[in-house]
Amino acid sequence: MPSDCVFCKIVEGKLPCYKIYENKNFLAFLDVNPLHIGHVLVITKKHFKDMFDIPKKQLSKIMSVIKKIMVGLDKTGFGEGYTLLQSNRHTGNQDIFHIHFHIIPRKKGDHCISFKKIEKPSEQQMQEIANKIKNSL
Amino acid sequence: MPSDCVFCKIVEGKLPCYKIYENKNFLAFLDVNPLHIGHVLVITKKHFKDMFDIPKKQLSKIMSVIKKIMVGLDKTGFGEGYTLLQSNRHTGNQDIFHIHFHIIPRKKGDHCISFKKIEKPSEQQMQEIANKIKNSL
Repeated sequence: MPSDCVFCKIVEGKLPCYKIYENKNFLAFLDVNPLHIGHVLVITKKHFKDMFDIPKKQLSKIMSVIKKIMVGLDKTGFGEGYTLLQSNRHTGNQDIFHIHFHIIPRKKGDHCISFKKIEKPSEQQMQEIANKIKNSL
Repeated sequence: MPSDCVFCKIVEGKLPCYKIYENKNFLAFLDVNPLHIGHVLVITKKHFKDMFDIPKKQLSKIMSVIKKIMVGLDKTGFGEGYTLLQSNRHTGNQDIFHIHFHIIPRKKGDHCISFKKIEKPSEQQMQEIANKIKNSL
């Protein structure tokens, strides 16, 4: 565990959080810089950097917590739809390098997340891209 | 399975896809409207609408496939960072109502996803929001 990790400090109780839920392995709390009212973060209690670092077992277990919280959130009225988001590395918009999943309640016209598509690759390019990924698995 | 579901048709081989990977339960292929080169979708073969609909067991298993593909993608050079995204309901930006996870390779300055934060709620508001969610779990 890096000694400067904000999420590790929250897990240890050295920093406060607006706690939503915790069990043996996971902790959920409000994002203090929310994209939308009710924006929740779900983290592992143990320090893992990102999707590359987290063991498969922890990853599969965290999904039950995420589902539980999304179902709960849906009863609050904070959202009509929900975006699940998880960022890896600085270039992938990760800001805190302790794995976390964002559960973001959404309402019509909230504009809290926007997407910009690239120009469609040609059929040949798509096939080449697919082959390159397939061969890297 | 709704008879008009595009992803069910892909699973059945009635529609083509740029396939990346498949196993007994899951299928991964290129998004034909990519946000970035190498944008992959991972779906369940069985039709589930969204996070509310998918059973926990399928959800935990799909994460191993997602991790495997992200690790593979990282060897291709298509991305430096990665965004994992999953949308629920029309208001949550879901377009095809068959659960799918987006794995989006990212490069510096790609601007393919942008975020807009809301004004920070007060401490009291944050506590009220947290309590409301906690009481709904």
